[in-house]
Amino acid sequence: MALDTRHFTDEMATLAQRLLAMGGLAEERLRAAVQALVDRDRDAIANVIHGDAAINALHVEIDDRCFKLLALHQPMAVDLRTIVATVKINADLERVGDLAVNIAEAADRYVQHPPVKMLIDLPRMGAIAEGMLRESLDAFVSLDIPRARRVLARDDELDALKNQVFRELLTYMLADPRTIEPALDLVLVSRHLERVGDHATNVAEDVVFIVEARDVRHHAGEPGGI
Amino acid sequence: MALDTRHFTDEMATLAQRLLAMGGLAEERLRAAVQALVDRDRDAIANVIHGDAAINALHVEIDDRCFKLLALHQPMAVDLRTIVATVKINADLERVGDLAVNIAEAADRYVQHPPVKMLIDLPRMGAIAEGMLRESLDAFVSLDIPRARRVLARDDELDALKNQVFRELLTYMLADPRTIEPALDLVLVSRHLERVGDHATNVAEDVVFIVEARDVRHHAGEPGGI
Repeated sequence: MALDTRHFTDEMATLAQRLLAMGGLAEERLRAAVQALVDRDRDAIANVIHGDAAINALHVEIDDRCFKLLALHQPMAVDLRTIVATVKINADLERVGDLAVNIAEAADRYVQHPPVKMLIDLPRMGAIAEGMLRESLDAFVSLDIPRARRVLARDDELDALKNQVFRELLTYMLADPRTIEPALDLVLVSRHLERVGDHATNVAEDVVFIVEARDVRHHAGEPGGI
Repeated sequence: MALDTRHFTDEMATLAQRLLAMGGLAEERLRAAVQALVDRDRDAIANVIHGDAAINALHVEIDDRCFKLLALHQPMAVDLRTIVATVKINADLERVGDLAVNIAEAADRYVQHPPVKMLIDLPRMGAIAEGMLRESLDAFVSLDIPRARRVLARDDELDALKNQVFRELLTYMLADPRTIEPALDLVLVSRHLERVGDHATNVAEDVVFIVEARDVRHHAGEPGGI
């Protein structure tokens, strides 16, 4: 029994470490995609589009670990919630990897046109989204609720930037129809970055759920209750 | 023991029935959002934007049922995979509900401008996305792999329509800059509908996983293997 408990504890630690590695890969691909767009670097763009083998393999491995842990150890309470949340977070991180591909695909079309403008707000959005992702995963491994709540707060910042990007690109498109096609791809990139923020928000909500066994998702504006 | 088994079987049946109700709500909201856009019906648009209480409540209830089943019954094999997949599918359906809101928000902006064009392809995309969602949930309750695979195949159809919508709207924007702002909202609607298809695809992949205990997500084009 003691041996089994130690084995379970070790496996849970490995699971957290693998999920962090998955998060690291997702962040890295996101950063590479935005940087490749800013640099108009076609090789770097192609690398992001075709470089999803590692993250896909890790996605499958983590799901597999979760199901083995559930089947072999019948965990309860916080362990059970952690493992099921890991399945969900794993799916969120895989989507972030897909969004990096979507950004690189938009970049691939964008660089076929002259630049519409200096890209300032999109890299800022990328940095915020990446920061939210990292902070949500830090909150997950430390089960740190205040940190998770900070992630939820930053989502509004990303949303405001997205609207600003949209309004600004619209003025370019109205002024010069030749910018419409490339500007549309920049709009799409801003939407992809917003969705990365949504995934980080999902992770942060899962952290609150693990700790408090309480669902915060549809009570965002409410006080903690009695 | 027999009593406990019967209780578990009943609970699993209720869980499936509740998930189908969740799917029904998601489909209904999606259909209402697209119809409100086509009809330029501001009341119907507002109803979709503010009408997410029922789906959110069901989302929380289903998650709760899943965790109780995992904690109280320590299910194995296909039951374990079904319950964890239900948590994931539940999250997918909740996002479809959010996408219906996003579509209604775009519609709310769109109707403030004169119509860009007759909307033919967007309702077609909506019907396909809705059909994929329904078929993926039917495949889930019957654990019907061929049906799940049909959902995966339809995703390409949705993708082709999305590209067609984009190219067509681009010609309107290039011809008349006054259409840029409303046409952009139609582009966003097509992206939201594409994402509904992605969620249906996730559900279909989960069905294959439940039945075959095998991960199809990153081997889309491969044969079954030896």
